[in-house]
Amino acid sequence: MREFLYPESVAVMGVSPSEDNLGRNAARNLLDMGYKGRIYLVGRGGKDLFGLPIYSSIADVPGHVDLVNILTPAHTLPGILKEWGERGTRAAVLITAGFTEYGEERRGLEQEVLETARRYGMRLIGPNCQGVINTDNGLCLPFVPYNRDSIKKGRVAIISQSGSVAVMLGYLMSDEPMGVSKFLSIGNKLDLKEADLLPLLFEDEQTDVICVYMEGIDQGRELMEVARRGPKPVLVYKGNVTQASARIARSHTAALASDAAVTEAALRQANMVRIDRLAKFVSYTKALLLPPMKGNNLVVMSTFGGQAVVSADMASAYGFDLPPVPDLVLEAIARSQRANVVKLGNPMDLGDVFEPEAYVAAIDAVVPLPEVDGVVLVLPYAPGSGYGTITTKPMIRHIRELSARLNKPVALSFMSHPAVLRLLQEEENLPYFVSPEDAIEALAVSRDYWRKRSLPPEEPLQLEVDREEVESLLGKIDGRAPTLDAGRILQAYGIRVAPMSLCRTPDEAVEAARRLGFPVALKVESPDISHKSDVGGVVVGLNDEGEVRGGYRSVIESSSRKSPGARLDGVLVQSMAQGREVILGARQDESFGPVVMFGLGGIHVEVLKDVAFRVAPITPREGGEMVREIKARAILEGVRGQPPADMLFLADCLVRLAQLVTDFPQITEIDVNPLMVFPQGEGGVAVDVRMVVGGPG
Amino acid sequence: MREFLYPESVAVMGVSPSEDNLGRNAARNLLDMGYKGRIYLVGRGGKDLFGLPIYSSIADVPGHVDLVNILTPAHTLPGILKEWGERGTRAAVLITAGFTEYGEERRGLEQEVLETARRYGMRLIGPNCQGVINTDNGLCLPFVPYNRDSIKKGRVAIISQSGSVAVMLGYLMSDEPMGVSKFLSIGNKLDLKEADLLPLLFEDEQTDVICVYMEGIDQGRELMEVARRGPKPVLVYKGNVTQASARIARSHTAALASDAAVTEAALRQANMVRIDRLAKFVSYTKALLLPPMKGNNLVVMSTFGGQAVVSADMASAYGFDLPPVPDLVLEAIARSQRANVVKLGNPMDLGDVFEPEAYVAAIDAVVPLPEVDGVVLVLPYAPGSGYGTITTKPMIRHIRELSARLNKPVALSFMSHPAVLRLLQEEENLPYFVSPEDAIEALAVSRDYWRKRSLPPEEPLQLEVDREEVESLLGKIDGRAPTLDAGRILQAYGIRVAPMSLCRTPDEAVEAARRLGFPVALKVESPDISHKSDVGGVVVGLNDEGEVRGGYRSVIESSSRKSPGARLDGVLVQSMAQGREVILGARQDESFGPVVMFGLGGIHVEVLKDVAFRVAPITPREGGEMVREIKARAILEGVRGQPPADMLFLADCLVRLAQLVTDFPQITEIDVNPLMVFPQGEGGVAVDVRMVVGGPG
Repeated sequence: MREFLYPESVAVMGVSPSEDNLGRNAARNLLDMGYKGRIYLVGRGGKDLFGLPIYSSIADVPGHVDLVNILTPAHTLPGILKEWGERGTRAAVLITAGFTEYGEERRGLEQEVLETARRYGMRLIGPNCQGVINTDNGLCLPFVPYNRDSIKKGRVAIISQSGSVAVMLGYLMSDEPMGVSKFLSIGNKLDLKEADLLPLLFEDEQTDVICVYMEGIDQGRELMEVARRGPKPVLVYKGNVTQASARIARSHTAALASDAAVTEAALRQANMVRIDRLAKFVSYTKALLLPPMKGNNLVVMSTFGGQAVVSADMASAYGFDLPPVPDLVLEAIARSQRANVVKLGNPMDLGDVFEPEAYVAAIDAVVPLPEVDGVVLVLPYAPGSGYGTITTKPMIRHIRELSARLNKPVALSFMSHPAVLRLLQEEENLPYFVSPEDAIEALAVSRDYWRKRSLPPEEPLQLEVDREEVESLLGKIDGRAPTLDAGRILQAYGIRVAPMSLCRTPDEAVEAARRLGFPVALKVESPDISHKSDVGGVVVGLNDEGEVRGGYRSVIESSSRKSPGARLDGVLVQSMAQGREVILGARQDESFGPVVMFGLGGIHVEVLKDVAFRVAPITPREGGEMVREIKARAILEGVRGQPPADMLFLADCLVRLAQLVTDFPQITEIDVNPLMVFPQGEGGVAVDVRMVVGGPG
Repeated sequence: MREFLYPESVAVMGVSPSEDNLGRNAARNLLDMGYKGRIYLVGRGGKDLFGLPIYSSIADVPGHVDLVNILTPAHTLPGILKEWGERGTRAAVLITAGFTEYGEERRGLEQEVLETARRYGMRLIGPNCQGVINTDNGLCLPFVPYNRDSIKKGRVAIISQSGSVAVMLGYLMSDEPMGVSKFLSIGNKLDLKEADLLPLLFEDEQTDVICVYMEGIDQGRELMEVARRGPKPVLVYKGNVTQASARIARSHTAALASDAAVTEAALRQANMVRIDRLAKFVSYTKALLLPPMKGNNLVVMSTFGGQAVVSADMASAYGFDLPPVPDLVLEAIARSQRANVVKLGNPMDLGDVFEPEAYVAAIDAVVPLPEVDGVVLVLPYAPGSGYGTITTKPMIRHIRELSARLNKPVALSFMSHPAVLRLLQEEENLPYFVSPEDAIEALAVSRDYWRKRSLPPEEPLQLEVDREEVESLLGKIDGRAPTLDAGRILQAYGIRVAPMSLCRTPDEAVEAARRLGFPVALKVESPDISHKSDVGGVVVGLNDEGEVRGGYRSVIESSSRKSPGARLDGVLVQSMAQGREVILGARQDESFGPVVMFGLGGIHVEVLKDVAFRVAPITPREGGEMVREIKARAILEGVRGQPPADMLFLADCLVRLAQLVTDFPQITEIDVNPLMVFPQGEGGVAVDVRMVVGGPG
């Protein structure tokens, strides 16, 4: 795999001296970027190019080739890979387009390419991509022209399914101090995917932060596993989340859309940083290359009151605390004010301090304070003018050294004309934020990343479950599970289900109600009815024998009338439970496999879409996060004097449900709806459950 | 007022040749910006400066002065204004700081300044500001150094309470083609406020778009009135929305915080564009300087598949439709594809088109289509390289002309190294968007602005209301209104209230229940109990005489026990109404005066904060918007087969409630909670109402 980044020899297939030949650009890039390994050009269109011979066939290439970069038409690839495979080449970048992104009819060709490579133990990047750049050794395979200015050496690695997004990110990083370490444009991901390539970048000494752009996720769990264990922040933009984008993504990188909410939850779960605008890659990488924001205490120091106001609003929006700066420190700074027209606090308005030395003294006093986790500094910068000369280059260097020495982030933002700042940035290779707002948002990303990373690992739970019972029940079910069986399966995994009895006559129902205790609820049992209450198949609050008989008849009559032809297996009788209604669910996601979901009953899930997801299995901490994550959590915490609900119990149920769908992936869908949760310490009980085994039911 | 922008003579007070004198900078700015009017410098520190004499007293100034710019210490201002006032000067900019933003103890001085000015019919900008710039005539009063590069002539006007935000916006606009027409830094807004200055900018022929930064709003209604009638878009960033920012804003521009939700609603109501990040001023003004986006149909044309995917996601997030491009047009474009590896649609991936002529033909075919309201175009730009030469300057000019001629926005975004693009921007004075995401967000702003502006005006409603009845009832109320009176007041404004009867014995309650009809609800009536149900003061669903007697006793006992000392005026008996519970409210807001609010009952208002606000009075359309604006509107539209609620009726109630609090500002609070709304066409009825007159009750 290392051949993809550090090959000692590279062949470019499909080169001709013609001006519009794309292979020519790849050759030019290798030379312009100073690649020092051996370069072999292969193609039919000419004798030589840029002083290098063009070999007209692979057989003519004189030496071993570590990595081959292919730009010839799609149909030629199987033959070409075979030849290289026989020569012992083990890494190929397929720039060529025209595979499944063009049409399903090309799937056969794509598979043939993959099988050819596998036969020779060869790994592939692409097809339909821009390939690889390594600024460390000058390897540069794209057909977009590059030089050392347009792709600048730096600390950020890029993996992108879209070539153009990769190129754009490369430009953005190169226009700023972050720069690029490695660039991997991976197109259709026929062979190597993000999960395969991340380990290379985790090991790479040039890389500190990794930016990923994806349109489709086909190995979601592997990606999560790799990212979670990785020692470096991974930022992910997941495009292709709507119908319109799915249409174009399909024909662009052959990517299928995946569920946006599940994807977002999965990324967060693996501590990947979610990006929702391409531009945010810039400010987030900037913050993640600063020392880590290890806590929630932020100080804003600003020469400008307006920016201090905006910063305070933003700090509050991103959940930062603005701790008071100790009086002694404030008093020392106040002594250096000129007109004494500004009162100091946090945010600290330094508009009345005019001596550079006083600024440095203030910064030196505040940054090291143990109660301060990070600082946002808004300074003037206008060399040569009166006011802006407070900030000097030595002062900026001093601040950067202080930040590095204390391992504490100081995010700089300047008030200056953008053209003046660009010059400063270039001269000092200085990362700064366009506004204090950007700085605060980016520091929040750093805080969240490091906070999650520093959480102690949780021991995997050893749940006492009855796998055999579940196996034996599942053996008899195909499609929609009978409610009683579904209930038994939940119970086998430790989720309490309200006792219920399947009755086939009004007499049986009365008998069951007496045994279970009034009041009772009756629900029609049918494999053909999904939403029982929509067909009048549910009656609740029945208090005596007469009501049960009436209810039984009403349930059967209404269900048969509104679902003609549905098979009715009888009526479930269940003792009524009082509690707050919640919904627990699980299903198999195409990209991520088993996932669990949580929400409140009633309108909250269906109408307000107030739902938390996690990829299963989950830890108790993750279960707890799910329960607290929903917007309406106040209802569980208790409103208007209500006691809090048993949230620990809910977290435990979610852990168990997640384990169940992990252990038995043949369960494709579970809806525990509702589960009644009781006040804290008192647990709760599942009241109804819908389960599908092996396929849509 | 015109003297503030187009004075024929300016005096700068507080000038000395000393390097750190701020007045000196103002004088330098006037010269560097090429101000052609007469300039008089006044100060004690020297004889002359930059070839102009420094007069040591106002009396020495030889001619009439239209506008005086004052940088002398705070305490000198009353005397100075008096002298200028006596000389006939009618406009003063007070740069000087150290007024109420420093401390409440300076309020007297501030008032003295204001009264002095008023005595002479003099208007003031400031104090505590950077003053005024007019790039049209070179007027430039700030003490921040400026020249014609750092503040570039253009189409955007700035009004900012914070000097530093004004300066920052000036830099941002000057770094882009938008440029600056007028710059008004207005600090503490002692005299002139946004509402006073906007008309100057609406009339100004140099200005097309206006950017406003505010920390406090003290004439909210005037601002709304002015902005609503204005012919140009007004963009507003309202800082100072949190506790931390209020602390600093207070000491920065003496601004008091206002309710963020009300402010946001008020801005939208007056069709001001809300800004939540300073950087958005840039992309939004850019879009608003393009031709108007008159509808919702967007076409994305992109050389790059990845950017097309991202654009489609973003278009969907901003509610755009991506209409299909007619087949005939697609086929014509497809004929110019080179390798035929890309299928065309909307978004249109032009990655397989390589001839500039074919690009132009495609653009010429798509932009004029009547079903297209605007286009986002993502192009390569890399002059001198193979691939990027598709885009040429003549092609860009052609596209801009096409857009202007059709009066339809074409938002450009390029794939290129930022440094290359900055050069292009400068050479062509070309506005482009950093990413197609920014372009789409900004076009959505344009769409929303023009959509709202093109709505036909609504005739003010002539509601039949009984003002005299309300007047006579209010005459007897101070503080919390008795429920029956509050109900009568609502009824006098045409809001139906469920009949209720105040009873003082169980017998009276039984009698009332018989008359009103079972089932009934009982509610304790007390001026001292706000939340009746919290003290057991409400029982519902009483079906017969016995239950009413029991209920009466329970209400009285529980209320006396849980609110000892509260005066109990009796028990209200009310016939039960069935419907969906909503809450209508009204109150007097500090910044905007009377406001109305709407939300669903239960948890929606209190727990989920799902509330719509409007400044009163409102039109029926605004009432309808409020009802549809809440997140849980699906509940009103009807979920699970429920019929839709009578949303027109709710809109009508809101109009009436808004009229009531407008006509009677002594009503400081109304809570109609709940109002039961019935299915469409059937209206609804207020079930309980809490009203406070004249002060907290």
